[in-house]
Amino acid sequence: MRFGTLEAGGTKMVLSVGNEQNELLEQASMPTEAPEKTIPAMIDWFRDKNIVSLGIGTFGPVDLNQASPSYGWITKTPKPGWSDKPLLPPMRDALGVPALIDTDVNAAALAEWQLGAAKGLNSCMYVTVGTGVGAGLVIEGKLVHGLVHPELGHMLLRQEPGDPAPDGFCPYHKGCLEGLAAGPAIEKRWGTKAQYLSPDHEAWKLEAAYLAQMCMNAVCAFSPEKIILGGGVMQQKHLFPLIRRKTLELLNGYIQAKAIMERIDSYIVEPGLGTKSGATGALLLAQQAYAESVK
Amino acid sequence: MRFGTLEAGGTKMVLSVGNEQNELLEQASMPTEAPEKTIPAMIDWFRDKNIVSLGIGTFGPVDLNQASPSYGWITKTPKPGWSDKPLLPPMRDALGVPALIDTDVNAAALAEWQLGAAKGLNSCMYVTVGTGVGAGLVIEGKLVHGLVHPELGHMLLRQEPGDPAPDGFCPYHKGCLEGLAAGPAIEKRWGTKAQYLSPDHEAWKLEAAYLAQMCMNAVCAFSPEKIILGGGVMQQKHLFPLIRRKTLELLNGYIQAKAIMERIDSYIVEPGLGTKSGATGALLLAQQAYAESVK
Repeated sequence: MRFGTLEAGGTKMVLSVGNEQNELLEQASMPTEAPEKTIPAMIDWFRDKNIVSLGIGTFGPVDLNQASPSYGWITKTPKPGWSDKPLLPPMRDALGVPALIDTDVNAAALAEWQLGAAKGLNSCMYVTVGTGVGAGLVIEGKLVHGLVHPELGHMLLRQEPGDPAPDGFCPYHKGCLEGLAAGPAIEKRWGTKAQYLSPDHEAWKLEAAYLAQMCMNAVCAFSPEKIILGGGVMQQKHLFPLIRRKTLELLNGYIQAKAIMERIDSYIVEPGLGTKSGATGALLLAQQAYAESVK
Repeated sequence: MRFGTLEAGGTKMVLSVGNEQNELLEQASMPTEAPEKTIPAMIDWFRDKNIVSLGIGTFGPVDLNQASPSYGWITKTPKPGWSDKPLLPPMRDALGVPALIDTDVNAAALAEWQLGAAKGLNSCMYVTVGTGVGAGLVIEGKLVHGLVHPELGHMLLRQEPGDPAPDGFCPYHKGCLEGLAAGPAIEKRWGTKAQYLSPDHEAWKLEAAYLAQMCMNAVCAFSPEKIILGGGVMQQKHLFPLIRRKTLELLNGYIQAKAIMERIDSYIVEPGLGTKSGATGALLLAQQAYAESVK
């Protein structure tokens, strides 16, 4: 059986076809332009792929309430042309297949939980640190949606001493997590794109301190059994030991969990599925959409 | 049928007997002294009460893992004499009834969700602001335990401009939520117990700003459908409009949820069960313990 998957990003759309063995068989990508142009192009790509269902992990905010008339619509986004636009409905209807949608980070969290770094656990947080910062959560064995869906990147953090740009760069909140620690914040603060900063640049200690605050706040807020950090900025692998050390320092022995105190190296980790968490999550959503349609 | 309930607090133990109609019939309280003294006294009180099960909402940290050999033990606490001490097991064994335990705030969250301010919803956060700050969470229709259990009071916050004590008073983390906004922090900052500060004292604007940061971070972290604020400090009812206004100001229109943007008065609310959330939650746990034992 063939399942369609879509990772809908602010910059590009990644389309794929996967199978029941959770393998991604073929893939294409196209730039994210106006929905009037991009959605028909995606429909065209899928049209001869013989898929039985579609799973979408998308940028947001997005309406995830399946009972809502605007289920699968992008709600309000800075991405030009996409505010209050349907994403899932036109694709589902044109392709004539059942479809499910979630945030890109929830899709990745789902995949990491079912098949990756959090396999066998009841909870995890998957964070992507890149152009923005976003998190997908599994708590008590369920993907978290809640009122809207998590927007962890906009959590407020304590300013780090010595930060040359402590006010942050988020257009909504200035010094929220994203405004302090996303890729563009690193670039604006230091005047150089993150990937060109050497591993011993002071930028990374600061970056690790903010991401450690995020880890600490997540531990305090909802106590995940695993924290998985992905995204472009986290390709700087030297960040991991810095973040782990700083998280322990911040927690200061308060949370007496061996998984944290004694095994931090396996508590704050890289994605088990590498860069395929998002696409694999969309595949799991597609499988679920199909299973629900034939039940 | 009669169910035993215990609200185990750092200062006092509140014992009660409730029925299937969720009514609390009789109540007693005793100071929290050493477990060797207090636990037998509690067992004595329950012994002739003819209860079929026991539900406990307790201070923490506490082991909530039912598969753990130390289920129902207080783990590490600043409360003298209670570190690594069993609370549930000796009571369950002496009384010969099934028992369940959760944190005091999870018990309150459970009651508010089943019977109170969050009835009919899939998620809520119940926060108590008093001697400490703690939160109980229901997410996707389940009480949240996770790796340990939420310890929201120890989330790090941004220092508010103009705070005369921005470093905070938590012995573990200094300027965490609890170190900045719990009752003792208010008293240390202003030199007067919170209840003696007049409603127009500048303390309250600052307090509301920190609690609004907490609300914002909760919305961003896990998107609860309702935020319920209880505890001693929240008896200052004039805090509610201040917190609501500041939360909207901090979110700055980013989370486009009508429940927040248009109905903040019914989003951040007082407990629907008044001061009975905790005891009622313990009663629900007792009913559940009984139901599971006869199933």
